[in-house]
Amino acid sequence: MQYSLTTGVPILKQYIADRTSADGIEFSPDAIQITGGSQQGLDIVGRVFLEPGSVVLTEEPTYLGALQAFSFYQAQFVSVKTDENGIIPSDLEYKIKEFNPAFIYLVPNFQNPSGITMSAERRHAVVALAKKYDIPIVDDNPYGELRFYGNPVPSLKVMGGQHVIQLGTFSKIISPGLRIGWIAADKEFIRMCELMKQACDLHSNTFAQYVIYEFAKDGALEAHIEVIKKAYKIRRDLMIDTLAKELKNGTTWSEPEGGLFLWVKLPNGISASELLPKAISAGFAYVPGKHFYSQNPDDTTLRLNFCNATEKNIVEGVKRLAAVVKAAK
Amino acid sequence: MQYSLTTGVPILKQYIADRTSADGIEFSPDAIQITGGSQQGLDIVGRVFLEPGSVVLTEEPTYLGALQAFSFYQAQFVSVKTDENGIIPSDLEYKIKEFNPAFIYLVPNFQNPSGITMSAERRHAVVALAKKYDIPIVDDNPYGELRFYGNPVPSLKVMGGQHVIQLGTFSKIISPGLRIGWIAADKEFIRMCELMKQACDLHSNTFAQYVIYEFAKDGALEAHIEVIKKAYKIRRDLMIDTLAKELKNGTTWSEPEGGLFLWVKLPNGISASELLPKAISAGFAYVPGKHFYSQNPDDTTLRLNFCNATEKNIVEGVKRLAAVVKAAK
Repeated sequence: MQYSLTTGVPILKQYIADRTSADGIEFSPDAIQITGGSQQGLDIVGRVFLEPGSVVLTEEPTYLGALQAFSFYQAQFVSVKTDENGIIPSDLEYKIKEFNPAFIYLVPNFQNPSGITMSAERRHAVVALAKKYDIPIVDDNPYGELRFYGNPVPSLKVMGGQHVIQLGTFSKIISPGLRIGWIAADKEFIRMCELMKQACDLHSNTFAQYVIYEFAKDGALEAHIEVIKKAYKIRRDLMIDTLAKELKNGTTWSEPEGGLFLWVKLPNGISASELLPKAISAGFAYVPGKHFYSQNPDDTTLRLNFCNATEKNIVEGVKRLAAVVKAAK
Repeated sequence: MQYSLTTGVPILKQYIADRTSADGIEFSPDAIQITGGSQQGLDIVGRVFLEPGSVVLTEEPTYLGALQAFSFYQAQFVSVKTDENGIIPSDLEYKIKEFNPAFIYLVPNFQNPSGITMSAERRHAVVALAKKYDIPIVDDNPYGELRFYGNPVPSLKVMGGQHVIQLGTFSKIISPGLRIGWIAADKEFIRMCELMKQACDLHSNTFAQYVIYEFAKDGALEAHIEVIKKAYKIRRDLMIDTLAKELKNGTTWSEPEGGLFLWVKLPNGISASELLPKAISAGFAYVPGKHFYSQNPDDTTLRLNFCNATEKNIVEGVKRLAAVVKAAK
């Protein structure tokens, strides 16, 4: 219940370091800064790197919370062309040369909002460009452990070493309300993070750090991840099956191999943000996709969350979505 | 354990509003933003008000953590002359006119580090100047409930209303490790704080907010405050008695009516920062006073904390302080 170290409770940092090392790189607790969830990780990264006018390269679409965090530092966002395998290296190289970015911001696994996972080939190409031009990659990885299908792809952090700053969190695998995440990076960078963290809030909740450690240490976390993956996989499958049954009108959606989100594209230029009030009147909701763009928003897109609803509500929600889309045509 | 509202858990905000209202002003939960301790309150206030070169007026000495928080925003600090009753209004008015500050930062109750409490007369004068020149006061109040002697002084927030942004915390009256504090200000200001908080870390730990509410709601907090006040008063008295017995060489110290800290001034120009390694070798420690100055540091000062040591260690620590001071003369 007392004040504790700014970088975090040592046994929790050791646990995270050991767990990260299992991915294939040697990791020391000195390379970890505990944060108030990933959102504070984003804020601290912004504090270290950004000044007014700094350019951040992002995927298209990209994570809304990152745009909010970096916007405070008056960053300028440039989005890199993105397909179903992640950002496209040729466009990345062009934009690195054109804009000399402060860093490249990526959510490589089951991206929020698109559900896309960057392929191994793309990762190699992106890391090679980061090394060639000496540009840091911020690898925001809240969903990486929630894989239901396919094979794991090597981690950007493992490939990129000190060129990669990885953000992790217990929000999606234990509890978001406890607000405990971390930054994994080289030791010098972590020392800068520590100074920033001290000025922000001294340290993260001591008690919550011990709660997480006690829960996780003897394997309960791994068992819990298996439980939630099983539940989320069923919901993902059900949502996709219901979309296929109900929306035969040109609507398309991503089929993510893990994570929490589906990305839907409406047909005939239907505006997802204009449709939202009708959806709410019909008793369901989504996040309009346009909020996830740093440039050139596509308002025909929307994000669905499949992890946090009952099976009955998933079926009913998709049926209502189909009805409002049909009425809008 | 789930995500919760950025401004804070409603029942905790209601509890804080009711408790603050007991001071003599009507307070609504909409006027409260929950923060990750007072340190995050300072950071958020800095985010809202400061840009490079903004001037912050401070007491002399002032709280180190505030200097750290505001420095990130490249604030310029100007210290206002301060005596045993707090900052001096004539110098405050001169510096308001000279520097057009973003705000006035004050720790009016049992100040960290000096232990000084601002007198009622001074408070009236300072609030009158804040109103006259329309300059906000940031009233950082972590220690106000820890009064052992004398009568309560009216709160700056009660006197100054919307001109005053008050920072509160449960760190000194329940637990610092839970990292829960709050900002109390007018509703428009709180809405700006909410936007900042969302970008910083989405919200504070949900579980900790409920723990604090459950602990506090039926009077357990008031009873706990009586217990710690009793313990801290005994330690404060013992430290002052021991200082009087052991340091008869021109050393002086504050005699605070509450809080956690004593402020010591060494004789003969002895440098507290140069003395620190000798103190550590002798098995005790203090914080050199020079770190608490925004301008013109006085290196013959140091801060002692009387609340967090056993009675035996207080006596032994002061004896060792006397020995190293004697040897330094």
